[in-house]
Amino acid sequence: MSDVTASQALRAEIRSGAFQRPTSGQAPGYVQANLVVVPREYAYDFLLFCQRNPKPCPLLEVIDAGEVAPRRLAPTADIRSDVPRYRVWIKGELAEEPTDVRSVWRDDFVSFLLGCSFSFEKPLLDAGLEVRYVSCGSNVSMYRTSIPCREAGPFAGPMVVSMRPFRPADALRATLITGARPQVHGAPIHQGNPAEIGIGDINRPDYGDPQPIHEGEIPVFWACGVTPQAVLLNAKLPIAITHAPGHMFVSDLTDDALPWFSESVR
Amino acid sequence: MSDVTASQALRAEIRSGAFQRPTSGQAPGYVQANLVVVPREYAYDFLLFCQRNPKPCPLLEVIDAGEVAPRRLAPTADIRSDVPRYRVWIKGELAEEPTDVRSVWRDDFVSFLLGCSFSFEKPLLDAGLEVRYVSCGSNVSMYRTSIPCREAGPFAGPMVVSMRPFRPADALRATLITGARPQVHGAPIHQGNPAEIGIGDINRPDYGDPQPIHEGEIPVFWACGVTPQAVLLNAKLPIAITHAPGHMFVSDLTDDALPWFSESVR
Repeated sequence: MSDVTASQALRAEIRSGAFQRPTSGQAPGYVQANLVVVPREYAYDFLLFCQRNPKPCPLLEVIDAGEVAPRRLAPTADIRSDVPRYRVWIKGELAEEPTDVRSVWRDDFVSFLLGCSFSFEKPLLDAGLEVRYVSCGSNVSMYRTSIPCREAGPFAGPMVVSMRPFRPADALRATLITGARPQVHGAPIHQGNPAEIGIGDINRPDYGDPQPIHEGEIPVFWACGVTPQAVLLNAKLPIAITHAPGHMFVSDLTDDALPWFSESVR
Repeated sequence: MSDVTASQALRAEIRSGAFQRPTSGQAPGYVQANLVVVPREYAYDFLLFCQRNPKPCPLLEVIDAGEVAPRRLAPTADIRSDVPRYRVWIKGELAEEPTDVRSVWRDDFVSFLLGCSFSFEKPLLDAGLEVRYVSCGSNVSMYRTSIPCREAGPFAGPMVVSMRPFRPADALRATLITGARPQVHGAPIHQGNPAEIGIGDINRPDYGDPQPIHEGEIPVFWACGVTPQAVLLNAKLPIAITHAPGHMFVSDLTDDALPWFSESVR
């Protein structure tokens, strides 16, 4: 007899320290988000970077300096304690991986919550498409490309993409399904020849695991949420905080509501 | 024998001072944009306001401090001279309406170019829909509503909407057509009873002209580009610059390319 959602229950466990694991498969149906925290001094440039690169950096919400709750995504959350594991970066170097960042928090920190491709896996599966790394129980393959992001202040670098293999007809269906979800990277940015976007060996991803590509399939590439983290680290800010890979922020927004989320002001 | 586009030719006339009139109907097929210029000190908050209110404030491009050309929309333009008439605002009061702002320009000015509903009139007409104020040769009706924008720093206030009357079935078609163009306000935010969004008398718009609503038609409301200007003036910045109403920035982007514009990083 509770009005607590699965997302709220999970965040309470995370906040207490009882849950410190990756969030994949947890609180199914609720949108999970990437976290980037920078001092206010750098927030304009990072916000501009996201505005200029909406496919790799689909911005779901900005928590302004002096606040710790994402008003729209999860009004009862505290961004300083509700991620299972954080990474604290000092001048681009990993300093620590705490489960709570209240001890290093400053009132001038601005938090950016960015969409994550977890949110389009279920719609792909629901449409009867096979998502290879899900079938294999492995991590998605990710690659640095030769596609430059549009710069903003100190934030610059190449786009990172994720790859999913599909038969050509299924690639078209996957394009429509993901294209309806610009808040989680939207439609693919390339299909076919990996060399055209600067990928040398499709079997050697820069991040994640290799995936088998079967006869008759083509690789399909989506802008990836690793891009903003890579760009952030290149910028070597005095301090920045992100989530640890796979340890996402779990919001109260449902995947089904996502296609309409940033569209509506009401 | 020229590679100059109609948009470039018009901007050259504007820059020389030969063209100082409203831009409606000029360089047809090219995207026209609203202009808001604020000092760098306020740029983060205004950018955040746009990010939080994408329907009234569809951001097409930000020209960062120290630059004067919109790299994507019109790389050969100079934002200080290529709008036919500007408004210079001092502490929220209209100070002057020059045709060139180079004399007041500062290196810390950041320029925001926002989509304009001019860009969805032609697709509506092409689909066989009647756009009433076009038929009447009048200006669209605009209203202040009771819908609050999401605040960012000093930027706050109610959403302003534009209204077009349609038969219910045509309202659905207009929703699909404009919904595919989020860069120019996207789908409507309301249809039917004006009182539900705080509009007292549909025949007395706050801006623009009244439009006849025929038997069997309903009013359909879109988020309007007057919103950011109204919000900007409320904020009473030490200085800000906008275009004068109807005197838009004419870009080199075609209306046909618009649905895909901010989607693509390439």
